[in-house]
Amino acid sequence: MKVLGIFHKPSLKSVAEKFSEILFDENFHVEYVGSEIPSIEVDLTLVLGGDGTFLKAAHKVRNPLVGFKGGRLGFLSSYTLGDFDKFLEDLKNENFERDIRYFLKAGDFYTLNEVLLIRDPVQKMVDIQIFFQDGDFYFHADGLIISTPTGSTGYSLSLGGPIMLPNVNSFVITPVAPQFLASRSIIVPDDEEIIVRIDQEINLILDGMDFGKVREVNLKKSRRRIVILRPKDYNFSKSIKEKLGYGKRFL
Amino acid sequence: MKVLGIFHKPSLKSVAEKFSEILFDENFHVEYVGSEIPSIEVDLTLVLGGDGTFLKAAHKVRNPLVGFKGGRLGFLSSYTLGDFDKFLEDLKNENFERDIRYFLKAGDFYTLNEVLLIRDPVQKMVDIQIFFQDGDFYFHADGLIISTPTGSTGYSLSLGGPIMLPNVNSFVITPVAPQFLASRSIIVPDDEEIIVRIDQEINLILDGMDFGKVREVNLKKSRRRIVILRPKDYNFSKSIKEKLGYGKRFL
Repeated sequence: MKVLGIFHKPSLKSVAEKFSEILFDENFHVEYVGSEIPSIEVDLTLVLGGDGTFLKAAHKVRNPLVGFKGGRLGFLSSYTLGDFDKFLEDLKNENFERDIRYFLKAGDFYTLNEVLLIRDPVQKMVDIQIFFQDGDFYFHADGLIISTPTGSTGYSLSLGGPIMLPNVNSFVITPVAPQFLASRSIIVPDDEEIIVRIDQEINLILDGMDFGKVREVNLKKSRRRIVILRPKDYNFSKSIKEKLGYGKRFL
Repeated sequence: MKVLGIFHKPSLKSVAEKFSEILFDENFHVEYVGSEIPSIEVDLTLVLGGDGTFLKAAHKVRNPLVGFKGGRLGFLSSYTLGDFDKFLEDLKNENFERDIRYFLKAGDFYTLNEVLLIRDPVQKMVDIQIFFQDGDFYFHADGLIISTPTGSTGYSLSLGGPIMLPNVNSFVITPVAPQFLASRSIIVPDDEEIIVRIDQEINLILDGMDFGKVREVNLKKSRRRIVILRPKDYNFSKSIKEKLGYGKRFL
């Protein structure tokens, strides 16, 4: 891994340039540094920013990625910005774990975290029907979220969904504000095709990005995947404990 | 399928005997009728009662099962008691779907729905640690429930767990009354071994039955399975809608 790209959120320009200089001194070739990603294949893209920045990069590149975040780790980032020296050591020794994450295909589009179907703030509540292999469910609600294991710690969690370990072969479906006494998530195997039909056009949001209005969408696991480089001591439960404080010993 | 057994909850004795007579008239051989299950292999065991009665039968027999319940269907029952004529037609034509459910192995014991680890009412809250392949979680709580997809509509649901379609290859872990602002379920692939350690002895309850006190238990998917016969028009989402009223159109 000698040819690198650096993608950063705009506010991290000077940090990105500093990283680039250090990498140059260590005889790595930095093909680009910027807050836009050019269509150039590199061996590894460094992403400086939070999970939102990382998702943008994941949609754009096909090569491996490694994420750096200020403060505490995000779920998709592998190092904090302050940990660059440790990353440099790992890079020189190619001492990484490869964390592979699959995309969900929504119609012709791809999403790594989730598909969110959501009404506009002034729009009436919608009737949503979900069809899978062996049945169907119906909700009168503001919308619906279908999340991958990767997305289960994102907006799906905020809507009450469970935490899925990254290697679970399932999607989680959760209605948004259903007109019912309770909201409960439904876990569906990821080898099933899911069809969602809505009685009106609502917003299709993939990984936080607007994909227009739809009344129907077909969902299935994609063969497209990304490789995230992780330090050898990475484990998923650690990031849950650090970021959410959940499942953690406080004493 | 000519040799049948009938297992019933005590209050359904007269219904069971009536079913037995009808089956006899139709040239089926009923090997036993009773509220105990003898160690006799039959082609099919009819179970008259709710999900609790069905679980007892599932622990005892290795042959296929079919459940009958008064009123509305249970999750494990396939026909209501009033639907016996429909069942008889299906039996004569061997017109069934085979619904296969796996057991979870807890130490040396088996459980179809769930493993519940729970303190006694006067006992102090416990410290629970859960270890799986890539990490661990810790809870200070009353206990912990580890459920199969089959058990996800049972007590796990009451404790806030998600609904899992029967063909999901995962377990769901939910703390019972954790001392934290929120309780959230964790989905773990069913090919992982899970170890649970508690700082004190607490009750081990498998499918609602008492298995004494433990401080540690190893959990993994078992190769043991049961076959539940279902009518051809059975689907899981229908029973969720009928029993829980969830995901159902009310208008």
